Amino acid sequence: MWTLPPGDTVLHLLSWVALAAQSMTAALAAGRRSMDWVGVCMLGAITALGGGTVRDVLLGHYPLAWVERPSYLAVTVIAAFATILIARLVDRLTTAFLVLDAVGLVVFSIAGCEVAWQINVSPPIVIVAGMITGCAGGVLRDILCNDVPLLFRAELYASVAVATGLVYAIGFVLKLDGDLWTFMTFAVGLSFRLLALRYRWNMPKFVYVGSERS
Amino acid sequence: MWTLPPGDTVLHLLSWVALAAQSMTAALAAGRRSMDWVGVCMLGAITALGGGTVRDVLLGHYPLAWVERPSYLAVTVIAAFATILIARLVDRLTTAFLVLDAVGLVVFSIAGCEVAWQINVSPPIVIVAGMITGCAGGVLRDILCNDVPLLFRAELYASVAVATGLVYAIGFVLKLDGDLWTFMTFAVGLSFRLLALRYRWNMPKFVYVGSERS
Amino acid sequence: MWTLPPGDTVLHLLSWVALAAQSMTAALAAGRRSMDWVGVCMLGAITALGGGTVRDVLLGHYPLAWVERPSYLAVTVIAAFATILIARLVDRLTTAFLVLDAVGLVVFSIAGCEVAWQINVSPPIVIVAGMITGCAGGVLRDILCNDVPLLFRAELYASVAVATGLVYAIGFVLKLDGDLWTFMTFAVGLSFRLLALRYRWNMPKFVYVGSERS
Repeated sequence: MWTLPPGDTVLHLLSWVALAAQSMTAALAAGRRSMDWVGVCMLGAITALGGGTVRDVLLGHYPLAWVERPSYLAVTVIAAFATILIARLVDRLTTAFLVLDAVGLVVFSIAGCEVAWQINVSPPIVIVAGMITGCAGGVLRDILCNDVPLLFRAELYASVAVATGLVYAIGFVLKLDGDLWTFMTFAVGLSFRLLALRYRWNMPKFVYVGSERS
Repeated sequence: MWTLPPGDTVLHLLSWVALAAQSMTAALAAGRRSMDWVGVCMLGAITALGGGTVRDVLLGHYPLAWVERPSYLAVTVIAAFATILIARLVDRLTTAFLVLDAVGLVVFSIAGCEVAWQINVSPPIVIVAGMITGCAGGVLRDILCNDVPLLFRAELYASVAVATGLVYAIGFVLKLDGDLWTFMTFAVGLSFRLLALRYRWNMPKFVYVGSERS
Repeated sequence: MWTLPPGDTVLHLLSWVALAAQSMTAALAAGRRSMDWVGVCMLGAITALGGGTVRDVLLGHYPLAWVERPSYLAVTVIAAFATILIARLVDRLTTAFLVLDAVGLVVFSIAGCEVAWQINVSPPIVIVAGMITGCAGGVLRDILCNDVPLLFRAELYASVAVATGLVYAIGFVLKLDGDLWTFMTFAVGLSFRLLALRYRWNMPKFVYVGSERS
């Protein structure tokens, strides 16, 4: 009889792939700004690990994942460095990396919800923790690249993280079966993100041309 | 006979108003940069809650206020979102919002001092904690909007926070009556800020045109 | 007979000098952006104390050094303020300040390794903690000045911190004599940095001109 593999194992494997993918796209962004090799590796590591780090610092959840397991840090640094060598290839695989980035967004959001759930915060904060885990790395990347964070300007990115967290929290409040629900959450989140990319769904913008004050 | 209401209750009510006001002015700043709706809400929440969050992270004071009471987070998100609908109105009420922002600066500074005092740090750090609480949210807003923080460039803003903290710390060292002194501190801080706005008081600038090195 | 003075005492004295020097060069950067006096002092303090602060927040190592000993904060604020008065002099002493900055980089890196070692993290994280302590202050300065961090773009700065941490970690793993090895580490790190400055050693850059995507 076929059974689902344990959800945590699958998520764990996917999160390794997602860490590498996020580090590699950040490394390309670093290359567009002519950073040196050390800067490329740092930007990769900060982008890939930044979301979980911000979440843990805000929740006071120590030690941080990469402090406890430096292998997380190693994989992001290696992925960023490898990107220097195979930049053309990474760039040609745009679509693949967009999918991997979407996987990362959803996996990190779920992982963030799980950490928050384990330390017994209220459901709204579980969702916020998921959103921070999925999104904060990209915000740090954009700040370090001296851009207004892309997250604030375009695409359903944060919304996907919030939707993922919402689905997760529903299962958690209703005490549904863990593994199955995790798969459901993953499927919903990933589909939402991929559809948003495919059909260029966008959040409406708030464009305000008022008196210049701040 | 008339008695003062408990200082903490008044401060608490004022802080709700100030949270909403700071979130709304941040939302206008987001609109000037054409952020999308999610970005507007995030920028509002980060601006309004950022000061207390930075203080608590630096002092290791967990759980954060908005983690413990998600209603804080809710009020800032709702205020930011409402701003999208009533932007013209908010902008026309510039003066009212400047006053509310001043109230927020002083109330947050006092709240920051109180938190620091409760965990028994030294008086200079009590003042610094007040300043961080009052000012750091605006610094985060400016970083996310890709500006040099306004705080570093103009107006008596940080100075008001420092003065507020100084008055607070004097009462604390002299063991003066809590509620009465809190009102005094609030009155001094608010007057200072409003006078600074009215008469355009400015800190002197340090303008240096030297060899370009960093 | 001549004996080495205790390494910690020497490092401690050097770190005071380095704190002041880093605050002063940050103050000059503030002056180039016409910040006001309060902004100058803040930028100085954040630059000089930021590295240790980021490290402690990431490691959950409380209380922060400057919270426990506000004199650290005082020295950076005073140094920044003094720079306003003697800017021309500071600028003319460029070489001296580059050396002091190099001393600071190495001393802070060693101090960061020591803190990490005391809380029993693994050797790779000891090195990372040293690097963060040496470099993060400058990154914060550049973010607040609205620049892409210099660290990511040029010079062997982070590399010196990593090399210093590596030498430190070797001694730590081999259980070599503390004081003597600390001096060795300091000598290696400082020489590396000064040679890099003198001969304009640079990390190779990753320049990527691809399709604009992020």
